[in-house]
This record gives sequence, structure tokens and C-alpha cells, in this order.
Amino acid sequence: MISSEIQAELTAIVGEKRFRTDPETRISHSYDATPLYQTLPAGVIYPTSTEEVQDILRIASKHSMPIVGRGSGSNLSADTVPPEDGLVMVMTHMNRILELDRENHTITVQPGVYTQKIHDTVEKEGLFYPPDPSSMAISTIGGNIAECSGGLRGLKYGTTKDYVLGLEAVLANGERIQTGGKLYKDVAGYDLTKLLVGSEGTLAIITEATLKLIPLPESRRALVAHYTDLDTAARTVSHILSEGIIPCTLEFMDQKTIQVVEEYAHIGLPKEMAAILLIEQDGPPVVVEQDLRRIREICHENGATHLDVAQTEAEGTRVMAARRNALAALARLRPTLILEDTTVPRSEIASMVREINRIADQYQLNICTFGHAGDGNLHPTLLTDARDPNEIQRGEQAFADIFAAAIRLGGTITGEHGVGLAKAPYLEWKTGRIALEVMKGIKKAFDPQGILNPGKIFTDTPSRERGKA
Amino acid sequence: MISSEIQAELTAIVGEKRFRTDPETRISHSYDATPLYQTLPAGVIYPTSTEEVQDILRIASKHSMPIVGRGSGSNLSADTVPPEDGLVMVMTHMNRILELDRENHTITVQPGVYTQKIHDTVEKEGLFYPPDPSSMAISTIGGNIAECSGGLRGLKYGTTKDYVLGLEAVLANGERIQTGGKLYKDVAGYDLTKLLVGSEGTLAIITEATLKLIPLPESRRALVAHYTDLDTAARTVSHILSEGIIPCTLEFMDQKTIQVVEEYAHIGLPKEMAAILLIEQDGPPVVVEQDLRRIREICHENGATHLDVAQTEAEGTRVMAARRNALAALARLRPTLILEDTTVPRSEIASMVREINRIADQYQLNICTFGHAGDGNLHPTLLTDARDPNEIQRGEQAFADIFAAAIRLGGTITGEHGVGLAKAPYLEWKTGRIALEVMKGIKKAFDPQGILNPGKIFTDTPSRERGKA
Repeated sequence: MISSEIQAELTAIVGEKRFRTDPETRISHSYDATPLYQTLPAGVIYPTSTEEVQDILRIASKHSMPIVGRGSGSNLSADTVPPEDGLVMVMTHMNRILELDRENHTITVQPGVYTQKIHDTVEKEGLFYPPDPSSMAISTIGGNIAECSGGLRGLKYGTTKDYVLGLEAVLANGERIQTGGKLYKDVAGYDLTKLLVGSEGTLAIITEATLKLIPLPESRRALVAHYTDLDTAARTVSHILSEGIIPCTLEFMDQKTIQVVEEYAHIGLPKEMAAILLIEQDGPPVVVEQDLRRIREICHENGATHLDVAQTEAEGTRVMAARRNALAALARLRPTLILEDTTVPRSEIASMVREINRIADQYQLNICTFGHAGDGNLHPTLLTDARDPNEIQRGEQAFADIFAAAIRLGGTITGEHGVGLAKAPYLEWKTGRIALEVMKGIKKAFDPQGILNPGKIFTDTPSRERGKA
Repeated sequence: MISSEIQAELTAIVGEKRFRTDPETRISHSYDATPLYQTLPAGVIYPTSTEEVQDILRIASKHSMPIVGRGSGSNLSADTVPPEDGLVMVMTHMNRILELDRENHTITVQPGVYTQKIHDTVEKEGLFYPPDPSSMAISTIGGNIAECSGGLRGLKYGTTKDYVLGLEAVLANGERIQTGGKLYKDVAGYDLTKLLVGSEGTLAIITEATLKLIPLPESRRALVAHYTDLDTAARTVSHILSEGIIPCTLEFMDQKTIQVVEEYAHIGLPKEMAAILLIEQDGPPVVVEQDLRRIREICHENGATHLDVAQTEAEGTRVMAARRNALAALARLRPTLILEDTTVPRSEIASMVREINRIADQYQLNICTFGHAGDGNLHPTLLTDARDPNEIQRGEQAFADIFAAAIRLGGTITGEHGVGLAKAPYLEWKTGRIALEVMKGIKKAFDPQGILNPGKIFTDTPSRERGKA
């Protein structure tokens, strides 16, 4: 519960309409897109300016009140599940595009802008913002920055981190900082910009971002390659990259995922295949044609049984859209979907998928795997039911085994979804104890009281040491 | 002076040959490539392994002894000038390439490897490590990482930061951490990798690095465009980029620099011109040809009086080599060269160059300007004489004015050389007080005793507030 004193102070900042403590609002902000996690916040507040964010954080700080910033809440690591009795600060009212700078190839936005809107805005001008998390139609850029969201184009173009040039952010105590600028080179002190990207709302609240844009590729072409086994698909990936061809997307789907996506989207995916690769290249038409020709040869050389080449850009877009909707497709099958995000060096993809399948069998679970083959980022997805505690427990054990396997293969527990609450118990397996202590020190430098999104990234109850086994 | 107890402890780690306190060794490690700064260290130590680095830091930590890690000492911000009575740890004996991973496109190296050696090694395999600081023939990758070195190809390919995937580093207390990995996506906790890049040896000592490689571009072509005034050159830069062409290098030289470089290198630069642009594109031959054709048209459209197009790749390489040697050429003119590194949004290049010239006139100084026009990173270079205290003082005032002007134009005090001792007094002008305090907190999280390269980045005597004027 929130005291009447704090209520009055917060209402004085934003007015009654934008500070809510009614049960409906609190319940609808008690969860995010991650299943199994829910906590009722004490209140929900909607700032409309950096100054209001500063004032709200001053109040939170004064009363040591935990607070979590959020956009659409589409994240998959329980990162925006509120802290117990904390405040949820919803950033979606700060949703203006502040400037599109054509000369410097930058766009400056407030955190509540939908990422898709940024894409649409800049592409009209012949510019390109490459990061494309599958959630981009509904997720906000502030959330993307907080999570360092990736997407399908990560291999060729990098992730959100590679496109954030400057930030305005508010610290826990209400002080405002500005980092970076419209600058491709800036080494004036520690790189707070990159540190804030992916800090999951635990270091500061982002109130403005300047993003780097690049020229929009002139054309794109896609194809789908069919495989009767996993290794030939993985070999194809290695072979394409080893020839110096970096496709803009290089996606993998296992048989279960293919079947489910096809039943949902009806785009002609081969339900009998062990795996498919969805490959797209972009760039000048002559290069795209040349790369596509060589990719087709490589697919055949490595055992693809069939190739579907999109005849138009629109057809390619439809295929990729189906891949983006894999999660929605899978969600129709069972009541609960737990989507993981392990990443391995790309040479280990086949090994990792085999490990996932072995672990799924061991725990008698239905796990579909799809993901970004080019950058080793896989999304093993458990189809389950939150009401079945036994299956959920087996699922947790399976994912712990999957994390441990990823780390054994030189990988990480999360490639693009973040640590949040969900993976905090396993973080030390990847970072080691010493680096984790350093991270806690960094947290303290930004937020000495620990009011910003407490419980995320760091946990008092780490999982037992299985990752080093 | 170093106590006999500490001497014995350090000698026990590395033996007598690799721990030196003789005057010759101490004097030759009392400075780096930055003029005007010199401090005698108490001793110089040469570790050959991570374990030795750990042991050395444990001793330094136990005795609160300041210590600076260094490679070739080629940095330009007095970052490796030793702390008073401190220890210099020279990393050049740790100079092995540990692994070239062709499948994952990574190379793992020790910090003492020369950057040029990395280029040569990977290019033989058809791979490419883009960062190319002008010092690369003599600078070490450890130094490049500590400084986040840039180079000529920054606009198209980014800087060192964009290619460091993972690090092994030793903290001040001797503990070892490992960050990242052969992973293009990794959001497991705060991004310590990117934080360590550019941290100037103040947070940890880097003992191993895994770098991202990309396919080697198939071809490259260069041209030189001549201009009778500054604005037409600047307009050309904007025009090229606005058409979606991102050259791999897009260098600018003012008249004074042209004259000096031509007298040094004899490559046919036009000594009567107000400015030249050196433009290079790389990629598939068909794209390079197409871009070059359009770039030539744009140069003409914007008032270039003459174009020299390199007829071969080798000829282009010679022209770019001349640019890389600008510093050496300038160094022949006066006894002391002070090279600065202000960076502005690229739309502000012409304004910044005009400001530099105005300030040079005001203080009656000889300042040549060259740099990376595509990313707004300029190197105003003062030709002076360290023995002339009056001129040196005017130089300092001029550079303070230049920093202030860069910040007014939305820029920064350093794009690729680092803060070090030289720019520490001005750092707050760029970051503001609050962000600087946060940085100090980060420093404390890594190095609570403050023994790692003390006095760099942070200073107790900041310059008076001129930047906000």
C-alpha cells in the first residue's frame, strides 16, 4: 500500500488522471509478457515529460519506494513485473519523435515511441534503423533500449546497442544526465550510453534517445531451404558465412516449429522437414542477386532437398513475417509458452539444438526451437500449462540444464531477452562471481538505495552451481 | 621510491630480468607519445601471463601502489604517463595470437599483439579487422582497446568498441574476470566488455581479447578531390552521405596539412588548394565502381576543381598511407606537436574548422587541421615548441576554446584519443557533473583503492566552466 502522503505528492506532479491506484489499473500492470510472474504494484503513474520523471523519482527516492519503468511490457524475462508494493512508471505518454536529422543520419525520440513507427518514419526518407525485435509492432524503443533488443537482422547489422548514439536519462535520485550525442566517435569518459543499453531499467530511466540510421538497402530477396536433418542445415550456415556472404537474416526453425507456424500462417512451409533455413539478403540489386545465386548453390551442395525462392520482395516479407509470428503461432497450442533465449557461438548451433532435444526428451517436455542461426541465438520454447505444477517444475529443471549446456558450449543464458527476474538465478553461471560483484557495484554507483527495478538481474537466491558441471 | 620489500615481492613473481628499477628503464617509460607530460615511475615490470598480472596486482593492491598498464605508449592523451612513484606494467611480452576461429569469424589475442599484425594475419584468410588507428603499425591491441581507438574507417565500420566481443581482464585486487565470448548477442548482465573498451586502464588490466572479424572487402578504390574553399568540401561530404553512399574512408586535410604532407611524402597533393578530401570505397567491384562514379559526379557538382582517381588499389593505398603519416610529416616542422581530437556532428565540420582557424588566429598559433570528415572527428594540430612557455600557454588556452566550441556545436572533447591526463580538466564540460560522479562510482566498483592509472580521466583540478559559455 502506498501512503496518503506519497499519493498526494505523486498526484501533485501528474494530476489524478495520470496517477492510478485502482485495482483494475494495478492488476493490468502486475505482469508482462513472461508467464509465471505476477506482482501487484501499489500504483501506476504516467509521466509526460523528463521533468515529471525527475519529480517522480525524487519522491520515490525520498521514500525509498521501488519503481519500475516500462513501455508495452512485451519483454520476456519478467523485467517489467513490478516490485512488491512498488510503483509502475509507464512511459507510453512520452511518445514523440523529436527530430529526424537527415544530414547526420540520426533520429531523436522519446522512449514511448513504438519501434515500428521509427522504422516506418525513417524508411520513408530512404533511411534504415536495422534492429527488428519480433515485438517491434508493439514494443517501445525505450523498452528495446532497456533490454538491448536484438532481432532477425542482428548478424549483419548488430542489435539495439549498435544504434544508440546518445541518451538522456534520469537517475534514481531524480538527477538528469545526457550521454553521447550525434557522434560516431566519442571517448569522453566511460561509455555510459552502451552501459545503459541493456541495463533493464536498473540503472536509470531513459527519457530520450538519439539513434543512428544508415542508408536503406536498395533491395532484398528471401528464400527458404528445406532439410531432412539438422546437421546439413547447420553446415549450410557455416558454409555461407565462410564464403564471406553475410545475409541480413539467417533464421532456423525445427520441425515442430515449422508445423505450428504453417498451421497458423499457411505460407507453404514443409511440415515433414527436420529443419528449414529462412535466408534473406539485402543491398544493391546486383549484389543481392549474386549472393542469392551463390546461397542457392551452397544450400544444394550441403544437402537442402528443396529451395523456395521468393519471387518478389513482398513474398519474402510474408515469409519473414511468418517467422516473426512464430511465437504467436506456438501460443495457440498450449495455454502457457515459456520462450528461452540461449546463445552459442554459431559453430555450436547443431550441438545446441541436439542438447535441447535431448533435455526435452529427458524431462518429457514439448520444446520447439527456432531462432537466429547466423548469430547462434536460439529460442527453445516450452509449450506447457501454468496450472500443471509438475510440468512447470520439470520445465524449470530443463531450462537450467539448457543454460548449463549453452555455457559449456561457450554461450550465454540470454542473447536478446535480458536477465530480469527469470534468469537472475543463473546469471552467475555466465559471469562468474567476481564480475557479478562488479556489476552490483555499478548498480550502486547509479542507484545507491536500490529503488530502480529491484530484484532484476541480481537475486539473493542464485541457483545452485550447475553451469560449471 | 619502491621499498625493498615490494621489490622482493615483485622480483619473486617475474624474476630480476623482467622487473627493472634502473634509471634508463624508468626514464624511457616516464612518457608516452603526448608532449609536455612526464613522470618518473618507481619501476617497470613485464608480465608474461595472466597469472603474473594477477600476482603483480595483488602486490600493488596490498601496498596501495599505483600502477599503469601500457603497450607501446603511442597514445596521445598522456594516458600511459606513469603515476608518481608508481609501477609501469608493460604488456608487450604477452604478444601471442591465441586463436583464429575461421568458423565463428573471431580472433583471440593477448594484449601485446601489434594491431597491424592482426590485420595481416586475418587478411591472409580473407577476413577483416576494420579498426585502423594511424598508429596501428606500432600500437598494441591492448592499448587500442583501452583507448577505444578509431581510425580512418570509423564512418563505415565503427571503432575498436564495435569489434571487441569478449575480454579477459584482471581487477585491481588481482581477481580475474571474463566478459562476453564468441557471441554476437549477449545480454547477460551489464555490458562490461563495452565498458572496459575505452576505460583507459583505469578499471582493469586487459589480458586477453576476442575480436569480431568480418569478410574482407573484395576491392577498394580511392580518389582525391581538390577544393578552393572549405564549404564546398564540407558540402561534398554531406551530399555523398545523403545519397546513401558510405565510403570506407572520407578524410579531410586543410591547406597547411596538405603542404606539409606533400613536402614529406611527394604523392602529388595540390599545395595551393584550401582543402582536399581523400575518399575511398571498398566492397564488391561492381558496387565500388558504381559508388566511385557517383562520388566523382558529386565532387564536381559541389565545386571540386580537380579529381585524382587512383588507377590501382596500390595507388590508393599509397595516398591513404600519406594521410596516415600526416602526424609524422607535421612533426618535422616544429619541435613539438600537440594533436587534438575534437569531434562534432558531421554537419558541423565546416563550422568547426572555421572556429579552429579563428581561434588559431586569435592566439597567433600555427594549427593544421586534418581528420575524418565522415564522422566529424577532426585533429587540429598545434605546431609549437615545448621550450616556449608563452606559446605553450597560448596553445592551452586555444585548445580550451576549441573544446568549448566543439561542445557548443554538439560535439565532444575527444573522439578517439581518450581523456587521459591531457583532457581530464575538460571532461565535465562534455559529461556534466552528475554523469562524471556516476563514472567515479563505476571506477570505485572496479578499483576501490584507486590504484589503476590514477589521475587519468578524473582530476581534482577541473578547468573553469568555459564549455557552457
